[in-house]
Amino acid sequence: MSISRRTFLKSSGAVPGALSLGLAPPALQSSAEGVSRLLAAFVVDSKWPDIPEDARKEAARAIVNWVGCALGGARHETAECALEALAGLSGPRTATVLGRKDRLDILHASLLNGITSHVLDFDDTHLATIIHPAGPVAPVLLALAERKPLSGADFLHAFILGVEVECRIGMGVYPSHYDRGYHITGSAGVFGAAAASGKVLGLDERQMNWALGIAATQSSGLREMFGTMCKAFHPGRAAQNGLTAALLAAKNFTSSEQSVEALRGFAHVLSGERDFSKMTRGLGETWEVTRNTYKPFPCGIVIHPTIDACIQLRNEHSLRPSDIDRVELRVHPLVLELTGKKTPMKGLEGKFSVYHSAAVALLRGVVGQKEYSDEAVRDRAVVALRDRVTATVDPSVREEEVHARVVLASGRAVEKHIEHVVGSLENPLTDRDLETKFRGQAEGLLSEVEIRNLLSLCWSVASIPDAAAIAKASVPA
Amino acid sequence: MSISRRTFLKSSGAVPGALSLGLAPPALQSSAEGVSRLLAAFVVDSKWPDIPEDARKEAARAIVNWVGCALGGARHETAECALEALAGLSGPRTATVLGRKDRLDILHASLLNGITSHVLDFDDTHLATIIHPAGPVAPVLLALAERKPLSGADFLHAFILGVEVECRIGMGVYPSHYDRGYHITGSAGVFGAAAASGKVLGLDERQMNWALGIAATQSSGLREMFGTMCKAFHPGRAAQNGLTAALLAAKNFTSSEQSVEALRGFAHVLSGERDFSKMTRGLGETWEVTRNTYKPFPCGIVIHPTIDACIQLRNEHSLRPSDIDRVELRVHPLVLELTGKKTPMKGLEGKFSVYHSAAVALLRGVVGQKEYSDEAVRDRAVVALRDRVTATVDPSVREEEVHARVVLASGRAVEKHIEHVVGSLENPLTDRDLETKFRGQAEGLLSEVEIRNLLSLCWSVASIPDAAAIAKASVPA
Repeated sequence: MSISRRTFLKSSGAVPGALSLGLAPPALQSSAEGVSRLLAAFVVDSKWPDIPEDARKEAARAIVNWVGCALGGARHETAECALEALAGLSGPRTATVLGRKDRLDILHASLLNGITSHVLDFDDTHLATIIHPAGPVAPVLLALAERKPLSGADFLHAFILGVEVECRIGMGVYPSHYDRGYHITGSAGVFGAAAASGKVLGLDERQMNWALGIAATQSSGLREMFGTMCKAFHPGRAAQNGLTAALLAAKNFTSSEQSVEALRGFAHVLSGERDFSKMTRGLGETWEVTRNTYKPFPCGIVIHPTIDACIQLRNEHSLRPSDIDRVELRVHPLVLELTGKKTPMKGLEGKFSVYHSAAVALLRGVVGQKEYSDEAVRDRAVVALRDRVTATVDPSVREEEVHARVVLASGRAVEKHIEHVVGSLENPLTDRDLETKFRGQAEGLLSEVEIRNLLSLCWSVASIPDAAAIAKASVPA
Repeated sequence: MSISRRTFLKSSGAVPGALSLGLAPPALQSSAEGVSRLLAAFVVDSKWPDIPEDARKEAARAIVNWVGCALGGARHETAECALEALAGLSGPRTATVLGRKDRLDILHASLLNGITSHVLDFDDTHLATIIHPAGPVAPVLLALAERKPLSGADFLHAFILGVEVECRIGMGVYPSHYDRGYHITGSAGVFGAAAASGKVLGLDERQMNWALGIAATQSSGLREMFGTMCKAFHPGRAAQNGLTAALLAAKNFTSSEQSVEALRGFAHVLSGERDFSKMTRGLGETWEVTRNTYKPFPCGIVIHPTIDACIQLRNEHSLRPSDIDRVELRVHPLVLELTGKKTPMKGLEGKFSVYHSAAVALLRGVVGQKEYSDEAVRDRAVVALRDRVTATVDPSVREEEVHARVVLASGRAVEKHIEHVVGSLENPLTDRDLETKFRGQAEGLLSEVEIRNLLSLCWSVASIPDAAAIAKASVPA
């Protein structure tokens, strides 16, 4: 059962015509009255039974993926720096930093879990906006759950609403907003964090609208920061700022009630173009979380087709190192532009080498964080095969496509054409793939028993009595 | 002794040509290399003896004004809401909320003191950018002083540097950035807070540059929020975010080192136009704090000339209520557009009434917060005179000008032409005016003895052994 569009129009008093403005001229666009109120009313009025099964299922998958990423980044230098700087300023330590024994107040824990889950660039992607949706939203909900019990269903419901709000606001300004230089995961994510927090805090419609406004006036995050620790700071700060917005609104801290659509509001100030209809059309009928995707490999998405092909060739032909004479790839032009490094010396550089990635995939059959360690890029067998990988640019090859050919020592060749890479919307990761990915990030941090327990809680999140159990179960014994 | 421009160029490796690009085309502007590094080096290298006497003096005046404003707003509803929402999340309560018994951690205290000092719209103004400079900077310095003793000279030095950095970055993007919709006090203020905090924390040049970068990626604050509690949230959040930036940078949390000038950095992303030369020309030779101004009256600046004229007429002619038949004003067009309310019913509405303001000024001879209370706008004598005030628009009258004419019961008329309103750069508030303003805000909160003590500490800030004394002395017994 979905909430009808008319319900929102009615409850918000918005003019129907204002919802389908599309790419109208600025003057007309700016009359898109009531967008903020509409979004606020949607979040406040939404009931768990309104959420269809496919959205619930995909949300649980997003949680499995997100918790895994937070574990994978839990010991990252970026998190250590942030903790060293800020842990001493924490208030009541009610919230868990996933995968660690550290506990912080709900605001600082939101920051840290937003950082760790994004720091390996391995989290989920809403391809229509390239927002990483879980990072700003999940941390605030776990932190609130640890403060006051929150059923798994309420947790997942608020998560779905937060994702919906951030992705819809993002869709309304993408790609102009991103092209201008904003890291949209932070700048749109703050709305998702505010909406999700506000739902759990039980804000009324006006307070929810204020929460969106307090979020809007904190919207920030520059793409200039890519390549520095600040990139992962963005989803963390978006989480923390969105939660702050909801906490303030709950005490009637006032804000604009047209923060998204006003001429001096978010969409006009932070974006050259905007399409408010994308924020509101079909609200409550379609669910952005169902368009979420998950990276199978912890590296730039452009080499994913190559890795996918090499793993499949290895498994289908039971290839051993000694079987392989050389590897020939036909790739999209961006592959060599972004990942053309011939001789990576450090693990991180391996992520920018299609040669290393192909070799390690063929030799090991899995590509996780370990395959981008210093050890892996110096592994003699990997280096030996890497030097026999060639890649040719072919402009007719799409980004999510590759043609891979392995010439065997016997002289015979085996080939694989990947049309839709694993992890794309057309070829999503299976639940089992997600488990494998999760394990790759959790191993070394948690025991097998702990991993199984945590995975089980994440998969069954919609029915567990208290979502805080996920946070607690992430802490190593 | 001032630091020479060449020193910075040398120490930062910047190209001299890059500093005087002015309004060059974007491609050329973007080659304004080294602006962030130059600003960082300037803050790190600056020594107290480099600061000329006029800058020190004006900085002390700014502190007197700012502390008074923080007292005036200490009990405001906006502060109460924020405290109710966030005080329970405070970490170690080492820092004072000025004028209150509440203590919070350094980050939350910075937020609160930024809010209270701006909430009455009575704080200082750097007219070249309309930044309110003290709000984002002073709170972080007092909070740090309460954590670890900080001499008054070091406090004032860091304050001057923070003001310099925020105003220069603001000048480089004003007015385009403001016109786009950013509340520049927040969006540029965060750099000032980061620079001032970083100076006290002893950051090296690279860390200071990271602090500016972490500030840049948090730069936010929408003008859409004017008229809501979020307006005062902006300088508070800028203070808190700038302090966070410096704390992170001190632990080597990395950021872009070209955050201000890069194509995807602050000045390109958050502003349509930019002039990097305004950020760097004469750095260390001129001091923006000397161009700071202070509002004499707690209302929109457009009615200040009228109030100034009425108070002068009253005092010069010893006017009593019964002497006055009517008042005739010739004003700038904006006066009636913004403050044309004929019959204000509430105190706040009085601030938007040139009629009330003229009447209360003539009757009471002072215009402080009390003159904009509910009581004042309903005062029979004020209402009676207000109804006999007329205002005529004259496009030849400048904004800081007024022609006021009081027709007496005797039939005689007295006139006053204000050319440069009190509080302008040409006719600044005297130290005594600042004291009167301070008292108007502190009375009712502090005793006479407490007021004298606090004023004395503020005036002598450059020589007191520990700046924390100011925060402590602001707390009512």
